[in-house]
Amino acid sequence: MPTTRNLLYKMNMNTCCSVTLADGQTTNVLLADDIYDLSAHLSEYGNNVLWVLDGNTARLIRPLPTPRVILEPGESAKNWRGTERILRAAVEEGMARDGRFIGFGGGVICDMTAFAASLYMRGCRLTLVPTTLLAMVDASLGGKTAIDFMGGKNLVGTFYPAQDVLICCDTLKSLSDKEFLNGLAEVIKHALLAQDEELYRMLLLKKHQIMGRDPAVLRNLVELSLKVKQSYIERDPKETLGIRQALNLGHTFGHALESCGRFTTWSHGAAVAWGTCRALEAGEKLGITDQRYASGATKLFAMYGYDIDYRIGRGDWQLFRQSLLKDKKKQDGLVRFVLLEKQGKPVLTTIELKLLQNLVISSPI
Amino acid sequence: MPTTRNLLYKMNMNTCCSVTLADGQTTNVLLADDIYDLSAHLSEYGNNVLWVLDGNTARLIRPLPTPRVILEPGESAKNWRGTERILRAAVEEGMARDGRFIGFGGGVICDMTAFAASLYMRGCRLTLVPTTLLAMVDASLGGKTAIDFMGGKNLVGTFYPAQDVLICCDTLKSLSDKEFLNGLAEVIKHALLAQDEELYRMLLLKKHQIMGRDPAVLRNLVELSLKVKQSYIERDPKETLGIRQALNLGHTFGHALESCGRFTTWSHGAAVAWGTCRALEAGEKLGITDQRYASGATKLFAMYGYDIDYRIGRGDWQLFRQSLLKDKKKQDGLVRFVLLEKQGKPVLTTIELKLLQNLVISSPI
Repeated sequence: MPTTRNLLYKMNMNTCCSVTLADGQTTNVLLADDIYDLSAHLSEYGNNVLWVLDGNTARLIRPLPTPRVILEPGESAKNWRGTERILRAAVEEGMARDGRFIGFGGGVICDMTAFAASLYMRGCRLTLVPTTLLAMVDASLGGKTAIDFMGGKNLVGTFYPAQDVLICCDTLKSLSDKEFLNGLAEVIKHALLAQDEELYRMLLLKKHQIMGRDPAVLRNLVELSLKVKQSYIERDPKETLGIRQALNLGHTFGHALESCGRFTTWSHGAAVAWGTCRALEAGEKLGITDQRYASGATKLFAMYGYDIDYRIGRGDWQLFRQSLLKDKKKQDGLVRFVLLEKQGKPVLTTIELKLLQNLVISSPI
Repeated sequence: MPTTRNLLYKMNMNTCCSVTLADGQTTNVLLADDIYDLSAHLSEYGNNVLWVLDGNTARLIRPLPTPRVILEPGESAKNWRGTERILRAAVEEGMARDGRFIGFGGGVICDMTAFAASLYMRGCRLTLVPTTLLAMVDASLGGKTAIDFMGGKNLVGTFYPAQDVLICCDTLKSLSDKEFLNGLAEVIKHALLAQDEELYRMLLLKKHQIMGRDPAVLRNLVELSLKVKQSYIERDPKETLGIRQALNLGHTFGHALESCGRFTTWSHGAAVAWGTCRALEAGEKLGITDQRYASGATKLFAMYGYDIDYRIGRGDWQLFRQSLLKDKKKQDGLVRFVLLEKQGKPVLTTIELKLLQNLVISSPI
């Protein structure tokens, strides 16, 4: 009998990249042409699976696959209760370690399905089908799984790479612009971290096709973006060498902003865009970042409509600071920020409190 | 400044073994001479730690270390609620990824502390100080972490080896015979799985010293037992190659028996002893196990007072069977049992239902 992997290849899905993480575990990223192709591929996994969807993504597949768990859409479901629902369904189905969880949805579904898969009998099989741009370029690759805990975003989680990531850019058509931009911020971030300027130039020159969801352009965009991520992950799978942390560019500032907005006011992408601009500004002020580069990159975010000039009110500073102090990248009690020397040259550094305040608080009246 | 590791060595703790698992992660098992030695070693970790104890082990250290979480003793605490208490305390202490959890206690404390450490910010530092024989020879080494879930023992967990395991056989003095025998069953199991007969002979010839808790003999016993475990773990760190599964000898039968007793009637060790005898019997009936070897090994268990002739009532069969079906070692829907060809030669095989019934159910009146 042919294996699932063989069947997937036989059906002509294109492999975008194979990312080998710690332990020699490999994630194969496969690009499907359209949603019918994707469904055909998924059906090849056979019976021993558990689907995890949310109320939104459940509308994308007919007939609805079984057995399944349908979670509430949104970040508020990303907790132990949601994880428990997935695990409970797996127990009820009598699944063993060789069973497979299939997460079909955005970042929350991908993170939670992967978290649950990493825990079920200490790890069962896992396929992720990211349906948002954010999940395609961020959550699905690299093995980071998580839930939120005590107000801390992604505070509890594991490293557990999916065996397969199936991407079909068709699913991006149905995204609102806001949700699409949520993911595009990570793509721009990857463009700044890339060794070459191909992705940066594409973002600069093809805004119309990108925002118009041109399938060929999007496919290329996702592929380039994933390859940047791959290059950082493969050199530092468990974020212990200070290399992979570069992917957190904009995230320390961004998470703190999200936290000030109780994770409802700001989308993750909008916060990352804002945070990356703050990191560029900090780098400039510290003489680390080339001024022309910082200005160009900031303009790229502005071009896509991100609110990069926002400043928090003085009253929010304590909350902002507390959120910074909870940052996972803290070492010896110090928060380390990712700044950019230039394109593709991240550096990790601490930032003095005074400068931080100047960067994020609106000037007094 | 000297590192913790250097300090530990400077203080003349003896390294029993260094076990390298997947990812090149290494667990150093260190043997302390007495509890004062141990306390001195532990204090070298400094401030950035969180202690996890239970009501019983909290009585072993004065003054009580801080910050700490004290859990209820016993298997009933081994769930998400207990895990959450540990994680919550870590958040409240503002611990980062470079913080260290120290689990001080028996198997439940070791399993839960390790589980929580593997999840906190996707993994913080971990030291285990097993205080029961069971935890010393079983829970502390090999990176298996777990909680119980929906009646399934260790159904939810991760692989996350401790960086240091500190063992002090002094703590065994205060154990009841029942608790001591709970761990000794795993030692006997290791003796059967060992490549040589040193541990087997020791168990056969030194019962008096072992049960009398002779410190030198116990130290030797623990060391030999850990080395057997090490040899299986290192060849198959994540139990994916069919080698490490051998350490589950007696456990599939044993867990099902524990489950019939709602995890209160039978101690883990007593159930494993019973289960190992059932596996020897099954092997004999299937022509796999040498008859003389099976009889000798069974007598060794009997010599230490384990109830190896017990049979379940007919009314318990359904529950027993259901528990078997939930076994994590299931593959393609089939439960695979560890049997022994001879000393140090485990084999994995399925067993027909009829034979299973004959092995575990008491004969009809």
